[in-house]
Amino acid sequence: MKLRDIQEDYINLNPLQAGGRSVAETRSIMTSYSDGYASYDMYSGSFSQFFKKETALLYEQLNEFLGTDKFYFTHGVREAKTLLFRSILKAGDLILIDGNAHFSTGMAAERLGIDVFSTENSGTPNFEINAHHYETEIKKLAKRNIKPKLLVLTQVDGNYGNLVDIGEITLLAHKYNIPVLLNSAYLAGRTRVNLRESGADFIVISGHKSFGAPGHIGGLGVLDKWEKSIKDYSDESKPWDLPTRYPAIVGLYASLSTIDDRVDRWREELEKTNWFVEKMESLGGINLLGQRPKRHDLILFNTPILDKISAKKRKKGYFLATKLKERGIIGLRPGQTRQMRVSIYGLTWKQTKYVYEGFANLIKEGRNGI
Amino acid sequence: MKLRDIQEDYINLNPLQAGGRSVAETRSIMTSYSDGYASYDMYSGSFSQFFKKETALLYEQLNEFLGTDKFYFTHGVREAKTLLFRSILKAGDLILIDGNAHFSTGMAAERLGIDVFSTENSGTPNFEINAHHYETEIKKLAKRNIKPKLLVLTQVDGNYGNLVDIGEITLLAHKYNIPVLLNSAYLAGRTRVNLRESGADFIVISGHKSFGAPGHIGGLGVLDKWEKSIKDYSDESKPWDLPTRYPAIVGLYASLSTIDDRVDRWREELEKTNWFVEKMESLGGINLLGQRPKRHDLILFNTPILDKISAKKRKKGYFLATKLKERGIIGLRPGQTRQMRVSIYGLTWKQTKYVYEGFANLIKEGRNGI
Repeated sequence: MKLRDIQEDYINLNPLQAGGRSVAETRSIMTSYSDGYASYDMYSGSFSQFFKKETALLYEQLNEFLGTDKFYFTHGVREAKTLLFRSILKAGDLILIDGNAHFSTGMAAERLGIDVFSTENSGTPNFEINAHHYETEIKKLAKRNIKPKLLVLTQVDGNYGNLVDIGEITLLAHKYNIPVLLNSAYLAGRTRVNLRESGADFIVISGHKSFGAPGHIGGLGVLDKWEKSIKDYSDESKPWDLPTRYPAIVGLYASLSTIDDRVDRWREELEKTNWFVEKMESLGGINLLGQRPKRHDLILFNTPILDKISAKKRKKGYFLATKLKERGIIGLRPGQTRQMRVSIYGLTWKQTKYVYEGFANLIKEGRNGI
Repeated sequence: MKLRDIQEDYINLNPLQAGGRSVAETRSIMTSYSDGYASYDMYSGSFSQFFKKETALLYEQLNEFLGTDKFYFTHGVREAKTLLFRSILKAGDLILIDGNAHFSTGMAAERLGIDVFSTENSGTPNFEINAHHYETEIKKLAKRNIKPKLLVLTQVDGNYGNLVDIGEITLLAHKYNIPVLLNSAYLAGRTRVNLRESGADFIVISGHKSFGAPGHIGGLGVLDKWEKSIKDYSDESKPWDLPTRYPAIVGLYASLSTIDDRVDRWREELEKTNWFVEKMESLGGINLLGQRPKRHDLILFNTPILDKISAKKRKKGYFLATKLKERGIIGLRPGQTRQMRVSIYGLTWKQTKYVYEGFANLIKEGRNGI
């Protein structure tokens, strides 16, 4: 098996990978703990007993970072949602999710026999979600004498990279007395997200999506009034459902030690993102879909010009990815030319400009050929 | 968090860690793939699509190594048992397990509402399990008109490190027409274990216990006649129950590339183990519990002499671990002096002799002080 060196050799635009790149600290710690049973160093086998101080600090840091009272580790976001759903819901209950939610949210619910109802979004070109969309569905359901047992709110979705204004939605939820789950997989870790201040009741996060932690670790954070409701099987006295064990936990711990620098960079990341969007649109035949200005690094472009250019080429859709790779740029879904989902998170300004120029040259050459 | 360097700085006798130490190849591959979403390099997000060739080879190698027809990855052995139990058993069914089984076997069953019945073992000093122990219980149950739906057989247990002769037990199981699960967590990977030749129907293994793979990865192997019965949620089209993802899989893949060397060393490991047992017993006041000669590296000693010596010391039970640590030897459960569970797996002959001499000196000095 070849060593993976694409992060060293290329500029990677894949938006799903942007928030998961590990820092040197994380890599070095992970390697040193890679032995299968490293957690048995103190013979107890319990990570939290071995690293008593570190584990306490990890929980403290996470709770502080997220404004939560209690945090539960899971393998990832879908497992965190499952933990919550099986704790506070039962088969036959109905939950209301946003129209931009990842399909796994519905999956997690349906697997437990929970009905899922979805809001609309504002449609093209912004595809936004607001309180109005939720209230419409709540009223519709009320006519059928159904009240959702939970609102699920994807804080940043993976399709458009839209950031939802959660304040008005949690106010609405309070009015109807429905608890709210904040799915912050794509946001918390890139920046600070505070559950307590948000007005929501629960938050799920992803270490490998947004904290630069190794796969796979995520979790559920709750406010203390919910703590007793969570049916957590993850402690060592109930070993049948162990959570993510130490390599990923150790990795997240290392990532958290540099989280302040990361969060401090977020404003500049958005500045760079909006600069890039503006320059790309100025090329003509490229249009942003989703919120404007961008408040997250995940960018979805409509790219009719790239589709047109590729159609003339022998390799068709693969022309684009191949051409960019020649310039050292990767991360585009090969074969796709009508739309493009990218992120320039973590690139320097110089690299960002280089990427823009790559597209500009490609389009200029392409236009001559049409 | 400190880097873990005890493997570099000490001789580690902890028998649970013996089979999980990673080789250089594994560490280097793991580090290179440590980014959270490295499996998205090809944008599909599916490890098996990205590493089509490698994945196919991994399954092929595992199936060949284990004599299985189909292999399913899980996070570890208990999850592999759960996968099997929920596939072929239902609540109210009864399974018969060996008297040396790890408690998690019973846990996995009870969680699913499955009744668990356990055999005796031969008692002190060997604590062995044989077909007779199973038949006794099968007959007892038959009087109550109950037939076990599954026999579980711990091939090597974690208490005594006894290796069970499985041939006569699977013959017995065939006589009564009961399928057999082989729990090979502590054996397969140290040496070759062949399900097909064993006469059993299912095998569970642990990457981090016996293959030198990073935590946490294990799995269930089955013969083809059972393939249709396994309710596997782990493929990418059903993303609600993802198996261990790529860091651990990549690590296991790297470990398998050196498995032949590892297996070739097994005979010498046992030779070293039995030499060590003999020398330790020759010191007096130290007696092996479990099978004799040893057919596995996990050794349980009764150590009345160490208990006696420690009792005279200010640090009592902690005296032993402290004294050994001064000599660069770790892995003993601190505070425990009546019994001692150790492994010298992977040590050189020179290191093994050094460990023996450490105990010899400690006991000699101690005897003078009694």
